[in-house]
Amino acid sequence: MQQLIDRIRRDGVVKPGNVLKVDSFLNHQMDIELINEIGKEFKRRFSDVDITKIVTIEASGIGIACIAAQYFHVPVVFAKKAKSVNIDGEVLTTQIESYTHKRVYDVIIAKKFISPKDRVLIIDDFLANGCALLGLIELVACAGASIEGIGIVIEKGFQSGGEVIREMGMRLESLAIVEGMDDKTGEVFFRNEV
Amino acid sequence: MQQLIDRIRRDGVVKPGNVLKVDSFLNHQMDIELINEIGKEFKRRFSDVDITKIVTIEASGIGIACIAAQYFHVPVVFAKKAKSVNIDGEVLTTQIESYTHKRVYDVIIAKKFISPKDRVLIIDDFLANGCALLGLIELVACAGASIEGIGIVIEKGFQSGGEVIREMGMRLESLAIVEGMDDKTGEVFFRNEV
Repeated sequence: MQQLIDRIRRDGVVKPGNVLKVDSFLNHQMDIELINEIGKEFKRRFSDVDITKIVTIEASGIGIACIAAQYFHVPVVFAKKAKSVNIDGEVLTTQIESYTHKRVYDVIIAKKFISPKDRVLIIDDFLANGCALLGLIELVACAGASIEGIGIVIEKGFQSGGEVIREMGMRLESLAIVEGMDDKTGEVFFRNEV
Repeated sequence: MQQLIDRIRRDGVVKPGNVLKVDSFLNHQMDIELINEIGKEFKRRFSDVDITKIVTIEASGIGIACIAAQYFHVPVVFAKKAKSVNIDGEVLTTQIESYTHKRVYDVIIAKKFISPKDRVLIIDDFLANGCALLGLIELVACAGASIEGIGIVIEKGFQSGGEVIREMGMRLESLAIVEGMDDKTGEVFFRNEV
């Protein structure tokens, strides 16, 4: 998605250790006009699929999932990262390791919100080593729902997550795939840039 | 907002201890059509105010803030609940106590995303004792921005947060104000229901 790639080039900040900061438009401050275009693009790429629910994980996936859901006309369910006293009933749970926060989270979804009849699109902002995404896939699969697709805003193509997920046979659409970064020059290199 | 009140009556679940669960449409599963109406209603109530930025707090505020922001044509900034290795530069920070999670959180916003020129609308899903909201107000005030309004989806009118905030002279608009609940009958009572 060229508009996204251009924006990453303009406003993304490359830090040592292959860190790409996009907090000025995607995951701290959110440019809603851009995220609207991202939502439209997900709809375009998954227009042939009959989706009944979008599933994401808190926190930064939620806004993107909600905006995208307007184009699919389906509800969003977001997995929560800690057990809340306000979730009761049967829950699906797994653990994911956060590279960013250097800790392991419990991730849960109330079972009643994903049924075996659901055809799910998973949406998230970043895909790197794939831990969070594999956790979401596990939760949705345990609910018995089918995963029709996975939409990612920015994939770090030099980390293993994308390959692992594609080798599972999942339909994964990443709107920008970063192949490399140079923290000396600030350059970002993209796969298949068109 | 009658549509919201009707929905709370239909799908909200009253639990002992004055807990109102709205996780089937607002803060775990999200009904995007309803949240769109909520966004429109915030715009209607704050149509006389020139807003430059919407500020909220992760996690459940984010989706509502993003949908609402489409009607204000402004970016969203969401405060984060834990220090991430991906936030650098100057940050504004405070602590809030979560009633739901029975713990104290550090809450932070990167200073560069709120300027003294900003006219901020704060949006959140719930207002009860006001801890989270007072934390957000503090962060926005420390940035030197003006707080033009606060939009809350559900206020628990029998807890002190709303009164405290109104007595500060803040313009607070709550789309549904719950005055009481009966966990035996499941009834929910609203203030000024029209």
